[in-house]
Amino acid sequence: MTRTIVHVGRKIRVAIEETTDSAGRPVRRDIVMHPGAVAILPLIDANHVCLLRNYRSTVGDTIWEIPAGTLEPGEPLDEAALRELAEETGYRAGKLGKLLSFYPSPGVLDEVTHLFLAEELTPGEQDLEPGEEIVAEKVGWDQALQWALDGTIRDAKTLVAILFWNQTRSTR
Amino acid sequence: MTRTIVHVGRKIRVAIEETTDSAGRPVRRDIVMHPGAVAILPLIDANHVCLLRNYRSTVGDTIWEIPAGTLEPGEPLDEAALRELAEETGYRAGKLGKLLSFYPSPGVLDEVTHLFLAEELTPGEQDLEPGEEIVAEKVGWDQALQWALDGTIRDAKTLVAILFWNQTRSTR
Repeated sequence: MTRTIVHVGRKIRVAIEETTDSAGRPVRRDIVMHPGAVAILPLIDANHVCLLRNYRSTVGDTIWEIPAGTLEPGEPLDEAALRELAEETGYRAGKLGKLLSFYPSPGVLDEVTHLFLAEELTPGEQDLEPGEEIVAEKVGWDQALQWALDGTIRDAKTLVAILFWNQTRSTR
Repeated sequence: MTRTIVHVGRKIRVAIEETTDSAGRPVRRDIVMHPGAVAILPLIDANHVCLLRNYRSTVGDTIWEIPAGTLEPGEPLDEAALRELAEETGYRAGKLGKLLSFYPSPGVLDEVTHLFLAEELTPGEQDLEPGEEIVAEKVGWDQALQWALDGTIRDAKTLVAILFWNQTRSTR
């Protein structure tokens, strides 16, 4: 199996992979290589979460999301989660727990997203990067769950976070 | 806003987008353009689903997934869903319903995944493409849900499908 890099971008690299499958047939596919990401479900209190209105130029759409971001080189996952939470929402978390790790689109993108739950939040100032168009809002849990079920929420990691936490929160 | 194509692959195109944010600051980002995808949760009966053991060269891992695939040019969503279901599992569906649409990774990838529920399944033969290493298995619903909650399932669309359907199936 060989991978030939055809594009080196700011966050991603793109490669053409040439290999053979188990039947010996040649296979050529495009691979997008990504450093990995963290995503954080911020619990403001037992009945409220913080969700973002996030303008995504990539899809030309403002969508509801939980805070998230790309890992910096060598950065531990929990530090990245606390950093992205603070940058995008202003909240500092006193308690952070890992929920899940998953592949957003494993056919084409090697990104792994590591999902955390953040609690004991202290409000502060957002610190957005150029190009980030993010408004943080306090949303009731029942509202967030309804939005996950009725199609209002259209971001995969946010659907996973809300549906996963709804399933597990009663068993804490 | 300009997008300059830097790579044209088999399924994806890669562009560099140059724009300014609402504060007038210049922003440059890599965009992976994708035709969109369908994913299908196949209900074998009230208590069993079909899940795939899918070897994904992109991530170097065999993972549990629901059947899914890239849209062909001009192909209607429901036809794509029935086609991918048949190719990857052998099942022909008598009933197909749309559940949700979502963005797997909207920071970098413009892919939209359209998620369907397939029922009234008739078994048949798989028809895999070169490079697809897929074994379809019958899995009990309680087992599938447990795997979504304990980290065994690490594919975002599969987590969304199982957790979403678990939340809504009782209200049919």
